[in-house]
Amino acid sequence: MKATRSPRRMVDQKQAVQPTLRNFAYEAIRNTIAQMDFYSTPDAIRLDERELAEQLGVSRTPIREALCVLAREGLVQSVARSGFFVMKKSRDEIVEMICAWASLESMAARLATERATDEELSSLKGLFEDADNADEGADEVYSDANFRFHQEILRLGGNTIIDGLTSGLLVHMKAIRRAALKQELRAERSRSEHSEIIHALKARDADLAGVLVRNHALGLATHVREHGLSRG
Amino acid sequence: MKATRSPRRMVDQKQAVQPTLRNFAYEAIRNTIAQMDFYSTPDAIRLDERELAEQLGVSRTPIREALCVLAREGLVQSVARSGFFVMKKSRDEIVEMICAWASLESMAARLATERATDEELSSLKGLFEDADNADEGADEVYSDANFRFHQEILRLGGNTIIDGLTSGLLVHMKAIRRAALKQELRAERSRSEHSEIIHALKARDADLAGVLVRNHALGLATHVREHGLSRG
Repeated sequence: MKATRSPRRMVDQKQAVQPTLRNFAYEAIRNTIAQMDFYSTPDAIRLDERELAEQLGVSRTPIREALCVLAREGLVQSVARSGFFVMKKSRDEIVEMICAWASLESMAARLATERATDEELSSLKGLFEDADNADEGADEVYSDANFRFHQEILRLGGNTIIDGLTSGLLVHMKAIRRAALKQELRAERSRSEHSEIIHALKARDADLAGVLVRNHALGLATHVREHGLSRG
Repeated sequence: MKATRSPRRMVDQKQAVQPTLRNFAYEAIRNTIAQMDFYSTPDAIRLDERELAEQLGVSRTPIREALCVLAREGLVQSVARSGFFVMKKSRDEIVEMICAWASLESMAARLATERATDEELSSLKGLFEDADNADEGADEVYSDANFRFHQEILRLGGNTIIDGLTSGLLVHMKAIRRAALKQELRAERSRSEHSEIIHALKARDADLAGVLVRNHALGLATHVREHGLSRG
């Protein structure tokens, strides 16, 4: 291979152009799955191609293409003669995923102690205000706030590689955290640990923030290992 | 979406079948790039499609398809009217990548203190024996041993999600570590830190092993931030 001086960042623009309908279907189906509480039920959740095509107002071709992409990414699985199902990870796989996530979110927290503004760190507490004030559906509101809290720590870390690596795990982690919070023991502990994390971040203590975020996630891993997630 | 009881692990076999020539070309080109010391030179490294086709004994179609897959994965880039080049990350991107890697390898080290056998941990030291005894080309031998050491820590962690997340960064990290080791200040420090890591792993001290592995990698990030990698 020859070494030549040449512009490094002139990526061919044509490469970025993708079939639009498939991308639209991909995003829509991914968002649909992200809203599902699929770890709270022991049942397999089937994705009906015809139903999805009708809902999104597109033909079945982009739906099928999008499902194939999602299958390659490990979010759905194709079962012979039955169609596509939301891919549920096994208990061991969930524990492994949480461990990987724990390490990346912990590093993001360390970086956030250097990069985030005081305002950004203070606003973390505000994410839980709606949940604290909610009467009805407080669990769902808290579950959403909980997920946004963890996403915000990743964002405040400002590391695009970490963002990229976690994005593939995001939908599973959302469903896992939601299912775990429904198990009462877990929710109370989650609340107090969030306060400690915010405190360490505001104190700009990288080591403490990193350890607390890691232990918070590893606590979830231990919980899943011992209790599982579905109540069925 | 309907919830139905259905077999969960019966993934459609057809899905796994991929065009073989493209996969062959993909693996071959990826291995070729992994052998290149592309961060030690300031030049852009062009991948010649015709030359690759001749070397691998295939037509240019699978070569081009493989290059497009590698471009999507961020290992090569297509430059309009010039062809494909090895994608070099910028200094900031390299620092971000090392931080992400540091967190994952640190978690793998923690897991290795629980999972690895005494024999496996003892064998880590043996990886450097050839380098210690080499007269000529000792730098290259040490560089290879260094990379195998870090891959072995990941393997001993036994977490398939961490393996998957790091595999996409592997080729870059190999070239980054190789280029950094050529800068003398770094090599000496690398040796003594490896001994400390092995010691902590054998003492089954998860916290210490995790911190040492993280700091070892973050030291590389600091080095790159301050000195860069290429000597050109």
